[in-house]
Amino acid sequence: MRDLKKISTAVIKRLPRYYRYLGDLLDKDITRISSKDLSIRMGITASQIRQDLNNFGCFGQQGYGYNVEMLYQEMKHILGLDRQYNVILVGCGNFGQVLANYPSFVNRGFTFTAIFDNNPDLIGKTVNGIKVRDSAKMESFITENQVDIAALTVPSSAASGIAKTLANLGVKGIWNFSNNDLRLPESVVVENVRLADSLMTLSYKINEDEILRRFTRDVW
Amino acid sequence: MRDLKKISTAVIKRLPRYYRYLGDLLDKDITRISSKDLSIRMGITASQIRQDLNNFGCFGQQGYGYNVEMLYQEMKHILGLDRQYNVILVGCGNFGQVLANYPSFVNRGFTFTAIFDNNPDLIGKTVNGIKVRDSAKMESFITENQVDIAALTVPSSAASGIAKTLANLGVKGIWNFSNNDLRLPESVVVENVRLADSLMTLSYKINEDEILRRFTRDVW
Repeated sequence: MRDLKKISTAVIKRLPRYYRYLGDLLDKDITRISSKDLSIRMGITASQIRQDLNNFGCFGQQGYGYNVEMLYQEMKHILGLDRQYNVILVGCGNFGQVLANYPSFVNRGFTFTAIFDNNPDLIGKTVNGIKVRDSAKMESFITENQVDIAALTVPSSAASGIAKTLANLGVKGIWNFSNNDLRLPESVVVENVRLADSLMTLSYKINEDEILRRFTRDVW
Repeated sequence: MRDLKKISTAVIKRLPRYYRYLGDLLDKDITRISSKDLSIRMGITASQIRQDLNNFGCFGQQGYGYNVEMLYQEMKHILGLDRQYNVILVGCGNFGQVLANYPSFVNRGFTFTAIFDNNPDLIGKTVNGIKVRDSAKMESFITENQVDIAALTVPSSAASGIAKTLANLGVKGIWNFSNNDLRLPESVVVENVRLADSLMTLSYKINEDEILRRFTRDVW
């Protein structure tokens, strides 16, 4: 079988942005847009937009531009947002509770079907209408119920072990909020959200000119 | 003046990872490491590590490897983590409150000096020992106090306007948790954390093979 073309991370990261912008256009009753107009709104070049979209087929029409509704629906399909996902939340501390209460996830097809924690003070309580279960029951729950995605908001020390268990049980995707780099079989998709790394990137960028000046001073 | 060399986003995104791994090595009392050993731990090539670090000077020594403590301190400096930052939190909903309570930020030099919200039920309350102030007082606070970074956790509809105000008042960095793409002068650094985009990226990756198979079917 022919190898599937690999899409670069940079392109993948732009796909949700296209989806957001197209949704905004629909909200404004704009039904048709040229790649140039879209490029101005999004702050990227028209050529970049055409290249990105060509990875997934030909959506534009010379002289007409893009049909916004059609492209929005295509992007929704490409992003896998025309499906339903059963999501479990593993770790129901402050951050986990915020996720459990995030309404827009449900609107996009992601439903929290169970919440797990090992804290006796939390087990049995309800968060956004969902009962917090004992972590010890997680494996049997996944065996008995379809679970597509696990949002992992446990302390870093526990994350790797739990992630391995989730992978072994056939969970397809892990939304990892711990600091750990999870080493899992390729069949499992890991998407990391690292707040601490993001803040460090911000402080790097604030100081970048000064830092680089130090390292280029010698080569003047 | 000579233009500063531009560091690619991919390299910048790896810097916090180096810092994390070096910190872990120090915790394990490992004082010296070859680029090969570090590459195995981090799951990237030794050549990539050398290239990344060479952007900021020559840290390794042929036949010796890296002095972990020295490289850790260098990375801390490169990331701007050997400084103190005054951070204000703008928006104190569920997510903002989680940020305000995140202890590791303070350990890295980021201190929340004020919290603002426009919700009368929140104004006057304290979150992690910090009083929530009326958003209407934000401008005067920034004028009278040094503010380096603003963490923006307001609804998307309000984000762009507030970000412009923050930029005009000289705030150097905005940690943006809203869905909006902020259009600000280049002098202001914006670092975005987009939970919804991250979840969409995860669902894309879960379905990627199937999606790409559809688009490559025609060219067999």
